[in-house]
Amino acid sequence: MAYAYWKSGKTNAYAVFDLFFRKNPFNGEFTIFAGLEECLKFLQKFLFSESDIYYLQQILPPSIEEEFYKYLKSLTAKDISLYAIKEGTVVFPRVPLIRIEGPLIIAQLLETSLLNLVNYASLMATNAARFRMAAGKLKLYEFGLRRAQGPDGGLSASKYSYIGGFDGTSNVLAGKLFNIPVKGTHAHSYITSFNSLTELNTTTLIPKQRKEAQDFCTVAVDWREKLVPIFNVVLSEVSDGELAAFISFAIAFPNDFVALVDTYDVKKSGLLNFCAVALALHDFDYRAIGIRLDSGDLAYLSIVAREYFIKISNKYSVPYFAELMIMASNDINEETILSLNDQGHCLNSFGIGTHLVTCQKQPALGCVYKMVELNEEPRIKLSQEVAKVTIPGKKNVYRLYSETGYALIDLLQRCTENPPVTNQKVLCRHPFVESKRAFVIPSRVENLLHLFWKNGEVCHPLPNLQDIRENVKNSLKILRSDIKRTLNPTPYKVSVTDNLYNYLHNLWLENAPIGELS
Amino acid sequence: MAYAYWKSGKTNAYAVFDLFFRKNPFNGEFTIFAGLEECLKFLQKFLFSESDIYYLQQILPPSIEEEFYKYLKSLTAKDISLYAIKEGTVVFPRVPLIRIEGPLIIAQLLETSLLNLVNYASLMATNAARFRMAAGKLKLYEFGLRRAQGPDGGLSASKYSYIGGFDGTSNVLAGKLFNIPVKGTHAHSYITSFNSLTELNTTTLIPKQRKEAQDFCTVAVDWREKLVPIFNVVLSEVSDGELAAFISFAIAFPNDFVALVDTYDVKKSGLLNFCAVALALHDFDYRAIGIRLDSGDLAYLSIVAREYFIKISNKYSVPYFAELMIMASNDINEETILSLNDQGHCLNSFGIGTHLVTCQKQPALGCVYKMVELNEEPRIKLSQEVAKVTIPGKKNVYRLYSETGYALIDLLQRCTENPPVTNQKVLCRHPFVESKRAFVIPSRVENLLHLFWKNGEVCHPLPNLQDIRENVKNSLKILRSDIKRTLNPTPYKVSVTDNLYNYLHNLWLENAPIGELS
Repeated sequence: MAYAYWKSGKTNAYAVFDLFFRKNPFNGEFTIFAGLEECLKFLQKFLFSESDIYYLQQILPPSIEEEFYKYLKSLTAKDISLYAIKEGTVVFPRVPLIRIEGPLIIAQLLETSLLNLVNYASLMATNAARFRMAAGKLKLYEFGLRRAQGPDGGLSASKYSYIGGFDGTSNVLAGKLFNIPVKGTHAHSYITSFNSLTELNTTTLIPKQRKEAQDFCTVAVDWREKLVPIFNVVLSEVSDGELAAFISFAIAFPNDFVALVDTYDVKKSGLLNFCAVALALHDFDYRAIGIRLDSGDLAYLSIVAREYFIKISNKYSVPYFAELMIMASNDINEETILSLNDQGHCLNSFGIGTHLVTCQKQPALGCVYKMVELNEEPRIKLSQEVAKVTIPGKKNVYRLYSETGYALIDLLQRCTENPPVTNQKVLCRHPFVESKRAFVIPSRVENLLHLFWKNGEVCHPLPNLQDIRENVKNSLKILRSDIKRTLNPTPYKVSVTDNLYNYLHNLWLENAPIGELS
Repeated sequence: MAYAYWKSGKTNAYAVFDLFFRKNPFNGEFTIFAGLEECLKFLQKFLFSESDIYYLQQILPPSIEEEFYKYLKSLTAKDISLYAIKEGTVVFPRVPLIRIEGPLIIAQLLETSLLNLVNYASLMATNAARFRMAAGKLKLYEFGLRRAQGPDGGLSASKYSYIGGFDGTSNVLAGKLFNIPVKGTHAHSYITSFNSLTELNTTTLIPKQRKEAQDFCTVAVDWREKLVPIFNVVLSEVSDGELAAFISFAIAFPNDFVALVDTYDVKKSGLLNFCAVALALHDFDYRAIGIRLDSGDLAYLSIVAREYFIKISNKYSVPYFAELMIMASNDINEETILSLNDQGHCLNSFGIGTHLVTCQKQPALGCVYKMVELNEEPRIKLSQEVAKVTIPGKKNVYRLYSETGYALIDLLQRCTENPPVTNQKVLCRHPFVESKRAFVIPSRVENLLHLFWKNGEVCHPLPNLQDIRENVKNSLKILRSDIKRTLNPTPYKVSVTDNLYNYLHNLWLENAPIGELS
């Protein structure tokens, strides 16, 4: 396509493209925009290498003129301007997330990469934000690397789930690259690698604040015997291998002891072994963190575990024991969390993998990249489906706010129009339905599109991951809760000015078919 | 976990891990194993860099002994042995796709990366193979980069869809890196970038086998006028911009002319403009390739287009015109293709994006990595769900074939057992259901697990992409068609020897709970 453009003399044609989506994902009514920083990095590095050119020469027809390859070799993104909404902002269908202006061929060559970099990033950030809303104040950890769509899919998942509100990841490389808190526990294989207490290599631990190691193993074993009546089990059916595994893990991480308690039987073995080791740690002046449940009825088991923790807390006067962390991590999705909330549970945190990182409910966001102007002439893509008609022309986007600080509506207008003014009424029209229109008096007007790239340079300060994460949080606060709810959320309105409405519909009319209504 | 293993003195423990899945994806009864080459590359490069160690020192507790970091620094995969099934082989639940043997800590550290590299690769290859079966002999092109889960997700999608039976990709970088045929057309924006014939920069084309350029534009315009009666349209409603775009594309690619015909109206504009330009190309001794449909009723429009092509072929005696390619590319999934097959259509090829590359129907394969042996002692992971109980011990896998060449059953057995012998009966048992067992007399026995990595080197020849693709094709041929069908496919059986059955169940019994049936 680039060659055909070039051959048609469109090398210096000046194009404007909008990058936007048509439908919010996950049956929701909002989306978090993400991926901008990666788009800018891509612009910085955009070029055809010698080997790229060589490859193209092999696969393209021999009729392609040599001059074209010289032209390709000279291409960079320096003549491109990129306007975008700030990363981490809540966005809606038809709003341009990115507006690209510049030489047609270059702008066109960027299409697929920009779409690739925005689609998954925004989908992931949105998915994570939805988990965050479902989970309330509970801790959320991304545990998805093993199920992600490729190694890079895994890294992106860690990054954008952190942006969307997760508290950390088990992906250590993501922690290193993006400075995201890292959190992990052990696997079932750690537990099954121990058969009995005799396998323990180290049985001693230095109590906190002291210097001399003391026998830790015996203390834990004694605690287990003491606890047997509370748990109402027969000691012979409690796994010794599991206890050995817990003891060895506690000795390795006395300040960070989290135990996976469902390898054998949560109620008959895991909880008892955990409590024994946690109380032994207490005797050594350390505090256990808690447990992880990876199977079974999570609501029920968490309540059982909490009851034991409280009973022990009271019986042995260890106040923090009542509050030990209970983490769940078995194939959890948004619905699981909402259902756990309904049932009642005693969980403090979730480790979430597959459903988060592959966005199982909807694994792709449908961003598109459409030409809206060429050489200052508007371009429109018509379609038998009204929803697929593009809004032509170079546009700005404003978000209008109510007195109470909520976002009322987004307004698209032509770049030649003056921006809306605070406390003055502005006519906001549905882009396609004539009867849908309203006057809005904004208490605050926010310009959403900012110039991020010009003359080959990033020209707007880029926030760090923390700032983007903050932006997601704040951005969601300005949405009314009925727009954010899971069941039948209210759509947020995206409108056009009267001027843009007429511009769009006049152009549409000019292109209307003759002869029949379709 | 690695530190806890180290601290517990398990540095030299020798572990065997199986990598396998529990359920075929996409409601199907088969899976294509892929990703092995990437796993081997990962083993080649496995190490902790200085900066990795530095990072770990920052995030791990200060109590971690310095010796441990020295140990990490020394780690490589040279003491690991990797057995695997050949890439591109059809595989089934519970069969170890990869068996890893070696020092426990290293084997454990490989877990997440190996799972990541196998899960998506196998899922994609399986998805592509299913599309291939649905599409029969039609051409299939992967068009998914823009919707893939990250840039690497896009590259992997191109690679593994080619393995699974696709004919090419629109991802040029994948073409370059993996030597996959590249195929693309133009976008709607190419069409809308032209408003009228006056915009054409070049209007001439050199006829094939000649040297002098002749006026191509006028020939095409003349053809259009001639064709108007056939298409039963009013010339004024046929888009001139579209014609200009087609002419310019044909001039750029006279041997590769494919036109996107649905920008304005397929029946009233796109088809007529395409035929005019294709006939002009014919006058210049070139052959057009065909059209692409990206919206609307694909079955109906393809039939309409084919009818016009045949009419023109007959009227103007251009035989190949009747056979021009008709490609469809609008959000196509496996069901769309099956439904198009039912309706009847005249399509020759599909360009497939989102549903293929994100595996929308099921975006993750659930491979797991379980320890089955430690220091020559079997390890078993029990679970309240029988399907989650692991089959302990170091195992080999044999595929038993019938006289007619079909695969009858896969048989897992302990490594200490002799392999099954051709034409001798062997007892194959369901691993968990005592009553399910049968004697099988194989006409051929195939050993599925091969040693691919030992002493730090790849020790089995690695096939190229073409060979793997061939393997997928041949491997699917040995499956009975009822196992491969879309609706209610028959499950293929995976069995264990009597010896392994008893080994598994004795171990299970040793670990049985006391006191109640659960």
